[in-house]
Amino acid sequence: MRAAVMRQKKLVVDEIKNPVPANGEVLVKTLACGICGSDLHALKHAEKFVTTARRAGNTFVMDIARDVVMGHEFCAEIVEHGPETTKALPVGTRVCSRPTLARATGPQSIGYSNDNPGGYGEYMRLSEALLLAVPNGLATDHAALTEPMAVGVHAVAKARLAPEDAPLVIGCGPVGLAVIAALRLARVEPIVAADFSPRRRELAEALGAHVVIDPVKTTVWEQRPAGRTPVVFECVGVPGVIDQLMTAAPRGTRLVVVGVCMESDTIHPLIGIVKELNLQFVLGYTPEEFAATLRHIAEGEIPTAPLITGHVGLDGVAAAFEELGSPERHAKILVHPHAG
Amino acid sequence: MRAAVMRQKKLVVDEIKNPVPANGEVLVKTLACGICGSDLHALKHAEKFVTTARRAGNTFVMDIARDVVMGHEFCAEIVEHGPETTKALPVGTRVCSRPTLARATGPQSIGYSNDNPGGYGEYMRLSEALLLAVPNGLATDHAALTEPMAVGVHAVAKARLAPEDAPLVIGCGPVGLAVIAALRLARVEPIVAADFSPRRRELAEALGAHVVIDPVKTTVWEQRPAGRTPVVFECVGVPGVIDQLMTAAPRGTRLVVVGVCMESDTIHPLIGIVKELNLQFVLGYTPEEFAATLRHIAEGEIPTAPLITGHVGLDGVAAAFEELGSPERHAKILVHPHAG
Repeated sequence: MRAAVMRQKKLVVDEIKNPVPANGEVLVKTLACGICGSDLHALKHAEKFVTTARRAGNTFVMDIARDVVMGHEFCAEIVEHGPETTKALPVGTRVCSRPTLARATGPQSIGYSNDNPGGYGEYMRLSEALLLAVPNGLATDHAALTEPMAVGVHAVAKARLAPEDAPLVIGCGPVGLAVIAALRLARVEPIVAADFSPRRRELAEALGAHVVIDPVKTTVWEQRPAGRTPVVFECVGVPGVIDQLMTAAPRGTRLVVVGVCMESDTIHPLIGIVKELNLQFVLGYTPEEFAATLRHIAEGEIPTAPLITGHVGLDGVAAAFEELGSPERHAKILVHPHAG
Repeated sequence: MRAAVMRQKKLVVDEIKNPVPANGEVLVKTLACGICGSDLHALKHAEKFVTTARRAGNTFVMDIARDVVMGHEFCAEIVEHGPETTKALPVGTRVCSRPTLARATGPQSIGYSNDNPGGYGEYMRLSEALLLAVPNGLATDHAALTEPMAVGVHAVAKARLAPEDAPLVIGCGPVGLAVIAALRLARVEPIVAADFSPRRRELAEALGAHVVIDPVKTTVWEQRPAGRTPVVFECVGVPGVIDQLMTAAPRGTRLVVVGVCMESDTIHPLIGIVKELNLQFVLGYTPEEFAATLRHIAEGEIPTAPLITGHVGLDGVAAAFEELGSPERHAKILVHPHAG
């Protein structure tokens, strides 16, 4: 099959072997796959990505000396059922799945793996047990946004918001926008969001934020409703942001760290102590949250249209990675591996 | 009055002016005052202590170019009522108080202040509204431990332990011992505690820990009851410990940061993210917790006798600061300013 392969820290389009479904797995044709900020980071800082992932306990992470086909935000179509499958969903069904293979030996990653190609290739193998049929009538591109939007649904669930809390979203890239959509879904208001980029502030409004601010002109602290406890969603993921927020936060603030900072970071514990801050780190989503997110997108309760700002074929993946560096141009670029 | 004064980063005994009670304040004679690890730190790293306190929002912290009388863990005796007092407690009453003056202009610190001398001097002024009479029959030295033990009571309250949680206490200095006593009071078990020092491990057992380990030989993670969520009380307060604990902790662990690390510290946010860790920073106690702690000590529900390992007069304060550097010799040294 054709795939955009990460090879020696570059993205190249090449012919590689088709994946073969193992027991309980299906072969799928990738219809659309979103490009995630983590993939950009994995390409740019490959060694650090792997070291940090290993340090964090992920022993199955890819070996960057070998080929990797990334892509973990996908919608695909069933092509062939592998051995020991129930065939509950027929060939031709459009499906979403968490980017994980449920193997008897333990879960394996799809996308950050040498063995399990992700959505930047024409075909993938997926675990039948994890497949979710795309509800009738939902466009493929929107279904492909299930994964990134589920991250927001999970972060908001972990925040356990109380009526007296004031949610503040720092950073309106794809992660921040997913959090805004999930807050809107949870009927929390007002949602206050901040980003330096005018384009991203527009997107924040489109996704449902009630107050959107330019950090050059004001702060989220000033714009929050008086008397409520700030619950800050850190969606930037750059070193220094946690410390900045801890320093500026009022007493009792809760920080939900959603942005993935891959590097080491400096904090001042005394600042946290004096203000009795709470830091909740969050990752991913539960299977239930993932499935619910797909349903919410299908029912129009999570707006996804504003997020899709570009499409590329496999030959355009490398350039798309470059373009995503600028917050003014794009939110989510979708790869259509069969588009030529 | 005589006092052990912090002057040009040294402790010197000198005659200084008696404090004068303002409206609503009383003059008290200091009977006993514990030496706190924060005082050791404030003497050794005075500039950094002040800078960090200011950065954390405490604008009233002392000016180290001027004299400071530290000491914030005290039991005292009412000598004289200042203006506009109710005199509800007569002269001669033994009292405890949080180390704070409740002034109309806002609270002021006692002990880390140029204006409000703490318990390393013969006399202090205290706010009448904050006074708690020492229950009859409770020894002065034990009453003086109300402040440090209240820190443990507060930390355990903030941890909101559930029956399926497993409390692990890292570091058995005065802060860790206070946490152990508070866990015992809350009838949580088993309490697992760790310290490199054999003497501190003995104290941890005396205070009520059920399993006490030497980190050279085993880890708290191995010793915790299977299947329970670790709730780790970080009572060391040295740079690097938070990161170490985050790296070693199982998924979903909650860290309650009680040890006061005054320096900047490095963490790896991705480690927190991958394991969805929670960090709750805690400080001090509420007025209710402080009062409850004094009652619990008086009723013998918080053991304080094992903690008191030495006594000094004002002339011995400087040497006591030195001795407290070694964990093998002392837990809590009490200063008796009138002992000569």
